[in-house]
Amino acid sequence: MSNQGRDDGLCCSPVMREPLTAERASELARVFKAIGEPVRLRLLSLIASHAGGEACVCDLTGAFELSGPTISHHLKVLREAGVIEGERRGTWIYYRVRPETLRLVSETLAPAGGEAVPA
Amino acid sequence: MSNQGRDDGLCCSPVMREPLTAERASELARVFKAIGEPVRLRLLSLIASHAGGEACVCDLTGAFELSGPTISHHLKVLREAGVIEGERRGTWIYYRVRPETLRLVSETLAPAGGEAVPA
Repeated sequence: MSNQGRDDGLCCSPVMREPLTAERASELARVFKAIGEPVRLRLLSLIASHAGGEACVCDLTGAFELSGPTISHHLKVLREAGVIEGERRGTWIYYRVRPETLRLVSETLAPAGGEAVPA
Repeated sequence: MSNQGRDDGLCCSPVMREPLTAERASELARVFKAIGEPVRLRLLSLIASHAGGEACVCDLTGAFELSGPTISHHLKVLREAGVIEGERRGTWIYYRVRPETLRLVSETLAPAGGEAVPA
């Protein structure tokens, strides 16, 4: 089971180090499935890069040839997977990315310790 | 559009910096969709953590209550998304992870520059 000496830089990421349990795989797969759809991935990116790191449906519909309800459905999928969270303020719900979720899935796949920028 | 001063550590990852184009979102979503399924995520992890970083179907079927053809189907989806690659040697095809694909999706979501291990 040793991966010592591998030169692909992935020896130490969690998903590479040992087999995922079925339970852990289910949790992670839920997040990947939510962002495994082009419109949802673009919504995530639009929200995250919007001024202040948050956006309402009113800020998002213009980027797509899709109805408001369709956009809302995709936002719901992202929210239920823990990728974004919403807060109602007045008429609108404002969405922002949950960085802890993105960090979790990123680190699950990432090589460990190899990304340091030289001082 | 400025995210200066955000304290969630995600200001600089590609998906956070600016809206993804539709084309880029489609490419990335294909990979996330492939790993957005618990069996495929476990297969990925089993292959990556197997001795030598590669495994054949014969090494993988024991971990699941699934038929060989079902496992083979999931491996095909992972291969077509560029997550793994296969090489036939004798009777079996040996699969290994394509680290460049995992690195790409990891870096797309990861905060930039924040993962350095202190010297």
